[in-house]
Amino acid sequence: MSAFSAEVIGTMFLILLGAGVVANVILKGTKGNSGGWMVITTGWALAVFVGVVIAGPYSGAHLNPAVSIGLAIAGKFEWAKVPAYIGAQLLGSMLGAFLAWLIYRDHFDATNDPDTQLAVFSTGPAIRNTTFNLLSEIIGTFVLIFVVFYFTDAEIKEPKSPIGLGSLGALPVAFLVWAIGLSLGGTTGYAINPARDLGPRIVHMLLPIKGKGKSNWKYAWIPVIGPIIGAVIAALLYMTLK
Amino acid sequence: MSAFSAEVIGTMFLILLGAGVVANVILKGTKGNSGGWMVITTGWALAVFVGVVIAGPYSGAHLNPAVSIGLAIAGKFEWAKVPAYIGAQLLGSMLGAFLAWLIYRDHFDATNDPDTQLAVFSTGPAIRNTTFNLLSEIIGTFVLIFVVFYFTDAEIKEPKSPIGLGSLGALPVAFLVWAIGLSLGGTTGYAINPARDLGPRIVHMLLPIKGKGKSNWKYAWIPVIGPIIGAVIAALLYMTLK
Amino acid sequence: MSAFSAEVIGTMFLILLGAGVVANVILKGTKGNSGGWMVITTGWALAVFVGVVIAGPYSGAHLNPAVSIGLAIAGKFEWAKVPAYIGAQLLGSMLGAFLAWLIYRDHFDATNDPDTQLAVFSTGPAIRNTTFNLLSEIIGTFVLIFVVFYFTDAEIKEPKSPIGLGSLGALPVAFLVWAIGLSLGGTTGYAINPARDLGPRIVHMLLPIKGKGKSNWKYAWIPVIGPIIGAVIAALLYMTLK
Amino acid sequence: MSAFSAEVIGTMFLILLGAGVVANVILKGTKGNSGGWMVITTGWALAVFVGVVIAGPYSGAHLNPAVSIGLAIAGKFEWAKVPAYIGAQLLGSMLGAFLAWLIYRDHFDATNDPDTQLAVFSTGPAIRNTTFNLLSEIIGTFVLIFVVFYFTDAEIKEPKSPIGLGSLGALPVAFLVWAIGLSLGGTTGYAINPARDLGPRIVHMLLPIKGKGKSNWKYAWIPVIGPIIGAVIAALLYMTLK
Repeated sequence: MSAFSAEVIGTMFLILLGAGVVANVILKGTKGNSGGWMVITTGWALAVFVGVVIAGPYSGAHLNPAVSIGLAIAGKFEWAKVPAYIGAQLLGSMLGAFLAWLIYRDHFDATNDPDTQLAVFSTGPAIRNTTFNLLSEIIGTFVLIFVVFYFTDAEIKEPKSPIGLGSLGALPVAFLVWAIGLSLGGTTGYAINPARDLGPRIVHMLLPIKGKGKSNWKYAWIPVIGPIIGAVIAALLYMTLK
Repeated sequence: MSAFSAEVIGTMFLILLGAGVVANVILKGTKGNSGGWMVITTGWALAVFVGVVIAGPYSGAHLNPAVSIGLAIAGKFEWAKVPAYIGAQLLGSMLGAFLAWLIYRDHFDATNDPDTQLAVFSTGPAIRNTTFNLLSEIIGTFVLIFVVFYFTDAEIKEPKSPIGLGSLGALPVAFLVWAIGLSLGGTTGYAINPARDLGPRIVHMLLPIKGKGKSNWKYAWIPVIGPIIGAVIAALLYMTLK
Repeated sequence: MSAFSAEVIGTMFLILLGAGVVANVILKGTKGNSGGWMVITTGWALAVFVGVVIAGPYSGAHLNPAVSIGLAIAGKFEWAKVPAYIGAQLLGSMLGAFLAWLIYRDHFDATNDPDTQLAVFSTGPAIRNTTFNLLSEIIGTFVLIFVVFYFTDAEIKEPKSPIGLGSLGALPVAFLVWAIGLSLGGTTGYAINPARDLGPRIVHMLLPIKGKGKSNWKYAWIPVIGPIIGAVIAALLYMTLK
Repeated sequence: MSAFSAEVIGTMFLILLGAGVVANVILKGTKGNSGGWMVITTGWALAVFVGVVIAGPYSGAHLNPAVSIGLAIAGKFEWAKVPAYIGAQLLGSMLGAFLAWLIYRDHFDATNDPDTQLAVFSTGPAIRNTTFNLLSEIIGTFVLIFVVFYFTDAEIKEPKSPIGLGSLGALPVAFLVWAIGLSLGGTTGYAINPARDLGPRIVHMLLPIKGKGKSNWKYAWIPVIGPIIGAVIAALLYMTLK
């Protein structure tokens, strides 16, 4: 599998399972309806686990433009590969959102509220405030990228071997995203990944969802720019401390 | 222990614990009553963990006809063994469902609703729609089988050794089933395993459950055919990408 | 640390944390009040983790007479050591229950219901039925002991090494107890350990708890005899299959 | 990264994520509002995981004056380094609390209750009782420090190697704090760390929080002194048993 395919497929699984768990909790008539924040954050954490297991050995499992950019700034990833990675991530996130909608189509139909429908695809703030919403995404992504650097350091010190951890090696980043969701996701819903928010928002705009409202493009730049700023800060701080 | 015994016993534990957690959450008067989707999906994930721990070293712990078929298509398992494996899985699932009923018998008696009683044994759709219910089972099982291929690849690259992960090696597939349940289980209850649904449905039909209703045989083909189709697609995509 | 001390201290931690989580969920005014079955079963699972981490290297971390008896039947533990292990387990469980009461004393005082107070110490059935309550404890403990045999087999095949899993090696049995609690604990509250139920019940009888009721000695034999029967069946089946 | 920086940054992440999850559950209008004890304790456990992953290789990841003092008593850490470690931990906890407030500022504004606002920063008892509140913190921290000794013993027996556990090595202490929170946190909210409580309380006093009340300095000594006493007892018992 090429690195490009791995990023497409890995991000597709990430968003299929991530959008899926939100659909399960907030759409009408589902078996997981009203499952709460524990269900949502655990589902997203395990979505990361699955995506990383698949893509890890082929592309390094970035699955997130902020990860690709952060690693490139820190000199751990070639800048020349960044555009293709981001393209693959966007494509994968759109495929994943489409599949999640397909599975839950009847429950989208049963849900009258357009805001709830959109929330399966993309994030939105609990309280609108451009400065603080942006800050939430910056800090959340800063935590993600900064800690990921320390994971990759640990890997470098402990190179792959015939006895290694196998698929369990994908757990630390899943636990990290679980932590960020539980603790920092309460304000803007922790996009912390431009592809995770933008790709599904495009799909929401294109799909013929019954009773659909606007795709809230006014807000769309925050979960794109915020994570990139967070990744830049994380890379700079990491390089300073090293 | 023979591979046949391992599949019987492993699937028995899988269904005993899986049907058990559903009984605990939905039957009347239990200590886990109304525990919600988190309890159900965590219980099923750990049921997989236990089944895989027991059967793993003896049969590879398929515990699911879709796994046996998927691995056979991909050339990772002999077709000649598939019928015996499926027979063992069905037998094990029936034993497990019987034991779960035995433990919760008084709570079955206390529960008047026949649909709730059936739901302990077999899955059913939140919204009936043959096409989309089938699609849910196809996609859910596709995720299961496709990712399992990448787990087995990781194992092949990292052969068993005197220092290996021991029982923790059964965790990745448990986490995967946890992910599928949380995210994709909201529509049809994620059978994703023909034996998991069919075996217990037969037991439901046979058992003298007080106030019992129909076993809903009309729906029964979907959680059998859907998972098989999903496994076929997963195997074909995996072989294409390899 | 001697094996005897390890069993005392390990079981003390097991019951302190196990009784503690029940107190936190069911007593009045606590911060975890009404936390539900997920909190209780996760707490007990992690209580097992902590007990096993401490006692593991010194005594093998039985922490449960049913484990000691089951291993002895299967020839994996000397019968001569069984009485001292059981004595240590009972002593440890009493110390743990005492500490849990001490921490939550003000919340015991705030809770008027004697049944709720007793439930922090010892198990009781959701629906009284001697046959089926006994059966629940037999099957629950059968699952525990039978799977533990397969864990110990895995350890024997993968001997300790300078690179091993460290404290993570205590996780599988914690996950197993989590599974049993979530799935099979809904009827009798999964004692699955004679010391876990008997020791705290003695402490309940002795302690000057405000508004205390009876210690329900009529039921007390079931969580003692049931687990022992379950352990015997597990050992016999394991030896037959081997 | 120096040990001092590691303790500052590790503790900063610990408190950012720990105060963050409390904010998410108890402040008005958040996405995790009313998520309950499971969300809070899981969030704190993962906050420990993240802090330990970052600081572990550089400072040993104490992140808690009670850990530094306990290890020093047991001869596993130099007394001369204790003051700098405690200073770093306090500084880090203040930075973390500040960041958590920044992210949730609009939700602090939306929450009228001063007690709720303070609870994001520092712990407080469910039922005020100096003796028993102190006892809760002593026993909770005793469990933490005593078990940490057995973790470090396991590490010494199994020295770092090119094949080690990587970031997963930070899991046991996270599970331990999860256990303590679930089981023993119901009375005083398990500070079990003087820096975790004191640093954020100072920040609460200094910050211009809308509708802010008192910082409850009367209670502040209990989550400082209790954990230190617990650490001393744990170290002495550990040395006696060794």
